[in-house]
Amino acid sequence: MATQAEHIGVTLPARYYVDPDVYKQEIDRFFCRMWVCAGRADQVSNPGDYFLRELANESIIVIRDNQRQIRAFYNVCRHRGTRMCTVEEGKFSGRIQCPYHGWTYGLDGKLIGAPHMEGLAREEYPLHGVRTELWDGHIFINLQSQAAPLAAQLQDLPQKFANWRMQDLRLYKRKVYDVKANWKFIILNYNECLHCPVLHPTLNKLTDYMSGDNADPNRGYVGGSMGFKDGVKTMSLDGKLRRDYLPCLTEKERQEVQYYSIYPNLLLSLHPDYMMLHTLWPKAVDRTEIICEMYFHPQEMAKPDFQGDDAVEFWDRTNKEDWSVSELSQLGIQSRSYTPGPYSARERLPHAFEQMILQREREDR
Amino acid sequence: MATQAEHIGVTLPARYYVDPDVYKQEIDRFFCRMWVCAGRADQVSNPGDYFLRELANESIIVIRDNQRQIRAFYNVCRHRGTRMCTVEEGKFSGRIQCPYHGWTYGLDGKLIGAPHMEGLAREEYPLHGVRTELWDGHIFINLQSQAAPLAAQLQDLPQKFANWRMQDLRLYKRKVYDVKANWKFIILNYNECLHCPVLHPTLNKLTDYMSGDNADPNRGYVGGSMGFKDGVKTMSLDGKLRRDYLPCLTEKERQEVQYYSIYPNLLLSLHPDYMMLHTLWPKAVDRTEIICEMYFHPQEMAKPDFQGDDAVEFWDRTNKEDWSVSELSQLGIQSRSYTPGPYSARERLPHAFEQMILQREREDR
Amino acid sequence: MATQAEHIGVTLPARYYVDPDVYKQEIDRFFCRMWVCAGRADQVSNPGDYFLRELANESIIVIRDNQRQIRAFYNVCRHRGTRMCTVEEGKFSGRIQCPYHGWTYGLDGKLIGAPHMEGLAREEYPLHGVRTELWDGHIFINLQSQAAPLAAQLQDLPQKFANWRMQDLRLYKRKVYDVKANWKFIILNYNECLHCPVLHPTLNKLTDYMSGDNADPNRGYVGGSMGFKDGVKTMSLDGKLRRDYLPCLTEKERQEVQYYSIYPNLLLSLHPDYMMLHTLWPKAVDRTEIICEMYFHPQEMAKPDFQGDDAVEFWDRTNKEDWSVSELSQLGIQSRSYTPGPYSARERLPHAFEQMILQREREDR
Repeated sequence: MATQAEHIGVTLPARYYVDPDVYKQEIDRFFCRMWVCAGRADQVSNPGDYFLRELANESIIVIRDNQRQIRAFYNVCRHRGTRMCTVEEGKFSGRIQCPYHGWTYGLDGKLIGAPHMEGLAREEYPLHGVRTELWDGHIFINLQSQAAPLAAQLQDLPQKFANWRMQDLRLYKRKVYDVKANWKFIILNYNECLHCPVLHPTLNKLTDYMSGDNADPNRGYVGGSMGFKDGVKTMSLDGKLRRDYLPCLTEKERQEVQYYSIYPNLLLSLHPDYMMLHTLWPKAVDRTEIICEMYFHPQEMAKPDFQGDDAVEFWDRTNKEDWSVSELSQLGIQSRSYTPGPYSARERLPHAFEQMILQREREDR
Repeated sequence: MATQAEHIGVTLPARYYVDPDVYKQEIDRFFCRMWVCAGRADQVSNPGDYFLRELANESIIVIRDNQRQIRAFYNVCRHRGTRMCTVEEGKFSGRIQCPYHGWTYGLDGKLIGAPHMEGLAREEYPLHGVRTELWDGHIFINLQSQAAPLAAQLQDLPQKFANWRMQDLRLYKRKVYDVKANWKFIILNYNECLHCPVLHPTLNKLTDYMSGDNADPNRGYVGGSMGFKDGVKTMSLDGKLRRDYLPCLTEKERQEVQYYSIYPNLLLSLHPDYMMLHTLWPKAVDRTEIICEMYFHPQEMAKPDFQGDDAVEFWDRTNKEDWSVSELSQLGIQSRSYTPGPYSARERLPHAFEQMILQREREDR
Repeated sequence: MATQAEHIGVTLPARYYVDPDVYKQEIDRFFCRMWVCAGRADQVSNPGDYFLRELANESIIVIRDNQRQIRAFYNVCRHRGTRMCTVEEGKFSGRIQCPYHGWTYGLDGKLIGAPHMEGLAREEYPLHGVRTELWDGHIFINLQSQAAPLAAQLQDLPQKFANWRMQDLRLYKRKVYDVKANWKFIILNYNECLHCPVLHPTLNKLTDYMSGDNADPNRGYVGGSMGFKDGVKTMSLDGKLRRDYLPCLTEKERQEVQYYSIYPNLLLSLHPDYMMLHTLWPKAVDRTEIICEMYFHPQEMAKPDFQGDDAVEFWDRTNKEDWSVSELSQLGIQSRSYTPGPYSARERLPHAFEQMILQREREDR
């Protein structure tokens, strides 16, 4: 048809968003075999500090050991398979003990106690480990033991965002959302602003949805920048700057926001004066838990008149608008009447994301 | 066995009521390929008025357009498949707009706006339509584009009930019930009064459950009439007439109630002075939503001393008794011990309904 | 590996605890084809007394008939398959009537009334029966009509526990727990006290977890005794004896508690001064309802200063600790990282139970 020339491609068939079997395959392909952003190194500042993360139906303990190394373990005792720890975050006092029969592990996962099993070869029963790597303060984990190093997945991102010195930033507030939509709808929504005039009246006053430059999409991420409207300094309820710029940004970096979807689960939003992280945790083909965190520079947070809620409240409002329309996407696409629709030139990034989904599926065949 | 001669047939095997696969087939056979009663023309009196109906997991918009024609559309934007409308009923101001990227449709479903897709051939992206037809004020919809006209399904019903002038009647009250029973149990229950002495003490004071004449069952409906006991004038808490008879009824029609199951989803109960409608909306093999509405003549409703609650409360009580025993039917039939049981001569109509179910299943093989 | 010699065996593969198909097979193998403890004869002291029990998705009526015989029936009317009775326990006044069309059965299950079905051969439509047998006050039911008598399943248990005269004891309190764990985790947990020092600080003050003698495990049960610590007389919050010993116990029987898992669903805990019963009612592969009841001697209960709550509260606390760790077992074993772990010599009984599970599975192939 002649009209095909007018748009750059079409949306995926519905099964990618509604078929539980496709979902299972994607959980394996993207969440079990890729590096997944699990949290931040400053969540486990001291030996024994830990947090739990649920990934692909697995409970994972992320912990800092006595050598200050960050490690991750399956939350499963090697004796009879008991889940050992149920408190979301906290501090182990030097050892991890199963509450059932008291098997005890060091912070490095080694079995150091097993009551009434004197002859047991303890070295054969350490906690099952999960690989961890760090990028500028972000902890990544990988359930696959043979995966290539994190650097291969991140490509040029470490250089690209070096000026934000992300590892120096500290958590201000966290909010968790339970969204009734496939995880890919969240990424589709994050990567275009064609919807901003209709869906986000507050946001649309701050940035020009026609502005910005996109990076060339690739198999590891998709993203780009957006510029502010006149007089706007950052993304917040009123666009005013209430904090100093992050210390090492260039003049250009002070004038825009970077929005990057780093596959499979990190949405990295770098502002002139703060960082926002979304991590996606798929729970079912039509349900995703989303953790949204706001990070500021510790020097700013130490100031007696520090304010951060202008940014927090702005993004909470915008988040809710996005989750709401993502849920409508989920409801609509399951219709027998749905057929793939046209992507405009303003939707190059969501289209590139969906093409990456297809490409990686082809590679697995 | 000799005893087989004493009853007219037996109930269906349990799978028709408990097997999710049979349920799916029936949803296709009866709810996607037959005309389904969706509501009433007076619910959409003016251009832009609409209501939503969920049928076979599809959200359908039923609307009156600017030419006063009643239309129905899948509630799915042609751009990226978003469900557009979530408010159950209301009025569109001349157009239907998707809340995501602002694609806009006329009340006739034509695409009239698609931001930043200037070259798009809009005529190729109208809302997907659903067929609609009217019968005496009832709106029927059909998800199958090749279905025969509604008249073929209704057969002689339009003449049979012409005297009630149903399109003149107006809604008084609506109540929605969520019943944990297969949709067919609701129809089985509706079509016999052998259970009335045991289950419905109030109703049983008004009508003689041995009275009435049944129409010959056929592939489109099953039903019959029931007469009042001495001194009873209508179905209500006390059986007294608080409204004039509907204007055009014969003397005989004033003496009885017509109870018709019009397949697949309309239970039409025509009283001397009012109309009751039940529409059935299957949600799962063991769950059905039921909308019950009471309609009176507008001349009666306009009277300052108009009363309708005697009928509303009577039927709400009777409905609840029927839903309760339908739920017990669902619970019992799933037992491994269940075997089809005998239908008596007083249960000819439920038996005919079940035979229709089998007949249409055979035709699809 | 050399270490294999140090332990007596390993835990079962995860599928026995997480696979819905294995669950279905086990429900058939253990709960539909074995004798299941349904309740107590004194719950139905008089003709017409009944209680309902849900077993393998079936609702069963357990009743005492006019000849004082205990019987059980599927709770399903032979007319149209309706569940007849929904009240958990009560008394039928001489007959069981279906609330739908009034079919009526005697307490022996015979059909004695079927309105408007004059010619029906009533003798062909009795309630479907379920076999019942008694052991010392316990009612057992069996859904399989060809099963061997209860005595074959119980083996030497009637002699072994004759001194407790269980049929003389009477119910004091009942508590129902809904536990998110496979039924077998409950039995695994019940049959070892290696976990007692870690999980049960209160219980561990009363009994020495290294004490006791186990009976030889067999295909019908697994169990053993545990002795009290010095100064402890029974299991209660403080270990003090507040009731006379049960009348016929030997000196040795006064010094210990008998803990027996009688397959598939009865945990029998015989104390010097009371009896505790747990019956297990699997609801899903990962969910079990547990009824816990405390029985005392009627002579004690008749005393004005009778106390039983010291035992009730002690076991309620201990139960909750056990259910909690059983739920952690369920959560942990579903991990992809789980591999069967080593059983120590202190875990012979859970190991024997799991071997019985495997043995009976092999026999069915």
